[in-house]
Amino acid sequence: MKNVLLITSALIASFAFNANAADIAAGKAASAVCGACHGAAGISVIPMYPNLAGQKEAYLVKQLKAFKSGTRTDPVMSAMAMPLSDADIANVSAYFASLK
Amino acid sequence: MKNVLLITSALIASFAFNANAADIAAGKAASAVCGACHGAAGISVIPMYPNLAGQKEAYLVKQLKAFKSGTRTDPVMSAMAMPLSDADIANVSAYFASLK
Repeated sequence: MKNVLLITSALIASFAFNANAADIAAGKAASAVCGACHGAAGISVIPMYPNLAGQKEAYLVKQLKAFKSGTRTDPVMSAMAMPLSDADIANVSAYFASLK
Repeated sequence: MKNVLLITSALIASFAFNANAADIAAGKAASAVCGACHGAAGISVIPMYPNLAGQKEAYLVKQLKAFKSGTRTDPVMSAMAMPLSDADIANVSAYFASLK
């Protein structure tokens, strides 16, 4: 019985990890639209727009969610974040965080 | 007379440039308090806090002014930005933008 519980716990933990794991390749595909302002490789060519390459993943997730919820506002970013799912946000953030 | 006008114009242009030029050394001195969250060299050790090293100067100025004016809010950053003068904001932003 103890072993069954341990295996079940391990499976649940594994599932939870995989369900939350960001997909960098999917994030790269979804990030194409970001490149217009933030640069194709996450280095902006426009002084007013931030570089995203190598930025902290958790910070990017927080900001995209803030733009989506309206706690942080910007005419462009509010509209960009609106259609993103939590998975999109996780993937795009993981992609930019992975760049150097 | 033409020479006087030219020299006067040059002096005014020079003054205007110097009045607006950010002072990276002053920014470095003023940035000591930023390092607790954003890292001494602008690379944060805390996932939720952004890296600032090499970030766009104009973006940093815009965000610090947004935190100061309240158009962007954050419990920590709103308090940090409040006492900063425009010159402080320019200097600190120039300092972090200068880091690699």
